[in-house]
Amino acid sequence: MTGSVRALVFDVFGTVVDWRKTVIQEGIALGSAKGKQIAWEEFADRWRVEGYVRGVDDVSAGKLPWMNADELHRRKLDELLIEYGLELNEAEAAHFNRVWHRLEPFPDAVVGLEQLRQRYTIAPLSNGNVSLLTNMAKRADIRWDCILSGELFKKYKPDPQVYLGGARLLGLEASETMLVASHTSDLEGARRAGLATAFVGRPHQWGIGGPLEPKPSDAFDVVAVDFIDLADKLLTIRVPAFR
Amino acid sequence: MTGSVRALVFDVFGTVVDWRKTVIQEGIALGSAKGKQIAWEEFADRWRVEGYVRGVDDVSAGKLPWMNADELHRRKLDELLIEYGLELNEAEAAHFNRVWHRLEPFPDAVVGLEQLRQRYTIAPLSNGNVSLLTNMAKRADIRWDCILSGELFKKYKPDPQVYLGGARLLGLEASETMLVASHTSDLEGARRAGLATAFVGRPHQWGIGGPLEPKPSDAFDVVAVDFIDLADKLLTIRVPAFR
Repeated sequence: MTGSVRALVFDVFGTVVDWRKTVIQEGIALGSAKGKQIAWEEFADRWRVEGYVRGVDDVSAGKLPWMNADELHRRKLDELLIEYGLELNEAEAAHFNRVWHRLEPFPDAVVGLEQLRQRYTIAPLSNGNVSLLTNMAKRADIRWDCILSGELFKKYKPDPQVYLGGARLLGLEASETMLVASHTSDLEGARRAGLATAFVGRPHQWGIGGPLEPKPSDAFDVVAVDFIDLADKLLTIRVPAFR
Repeated sequence: MTGSVRALVFDVFGTVVDWRKTVIQEGIALGSAKGKQIAWEEFADRWRVEGYVRGVDDVSAGKLPWMNADELHRRKLDELLIEYGLELNEAEAAHFNRVWHRLEPFPDAVVGLEQLRQRYTIAPLSNGNVSLLTNMAKRADIRWDCILSGELFKKYKPDPQVYLGGARLLGLEASETMLVASHTSDLEGARRAGLATAFVGRPHQWGIGGPLEPKPSDAFDVVAVDFIDLADKLLTIRVPAFR
């Protein structure tokens, strides 16, 4: 199946970038500047789970109107700031909310992507919004060929419209498009929509000792330990280079 | 007004890339391979004007349902192939239709864009479709920060929704976004939507002796002769670099 793949689209949070590390690092610096001791690991996990993950679910279930990731993050941040007693003015809160635009890639990500870009069109296909993905890539020097996001369809993965819409904007069939992700639920969604799938393990994305992602299923087309391994595996397949 | 600009969005056909030259070159090679003499300058101009320009107008006026640039191009190509007596099979016609994905940049474009990218977020904001813009950039080594297209809004410039939608996806106000174009009608549309505007002269985009674009109006914020001149003019403005 992988021989006909022309484009690789990537989950981002936890697959390309280490969201937890960056949010905790910036939190510690912010708390220190404000003279405030905060359990930043807990703060980061709650922001992620109760803000973003639950927010995405609630939008998908129709319990919340459409809002993008920045808006979901800000909604939860305002609650957490009160709960943890951290006082920020509007400019400071807006800046901290954009920590999600400043997430740092896993160490193998930029090098691996550059190898993959030689043969494939590469793009994020994330539930993060377009400006978040654009700013993140510019800052981290990730060279995507284009930016794809659920925001373009006002739907969140694993809604099939996101996977199919991404392939359609690339001018490709679903089967010519491969999702790369560390989350089995995302990959299952892509597979149901007809995309090829590559699992990349990021076992510690919730921290050492944190919950582990489910093991990859045999149904995925490729299983790799990181992006360099993924490039090794995909680039040995004999298909024409990008024309 | 230009001091608050954070992103530059670019018209593409005739501003970044020399559509006419590439279409004529590929046409000549194709005609030669098929042993067919064709007036390729006329063919190219008719494809552009009767296929794309009129097609965009007809979609905007509701005379045609939404279709993207690839579809508008293909619709006219099929007519022109019959009219000029050029027989292509489906794979050949599909490939020639994608000549618009292979247009070559004006000589100053890639260097100028790379200078501008150091300070600004840069993106196309074109009536060309996403895959066309993505493939073109990959082939020509243009490093956009993201790809913006009327296709994302199912509207064509100068509809204000395209300019406003582009700014919104970048997380910016209209006034923080500048359209760069060689077409005064496009710039007028952007200005009406509240964007900053930069005119770049491409006087011979319809060929030497072809129709000239109207002169730039005083209402545009910047007037430049090419992208290197534009970079010189914009980068002397003292604003913070991209953070």
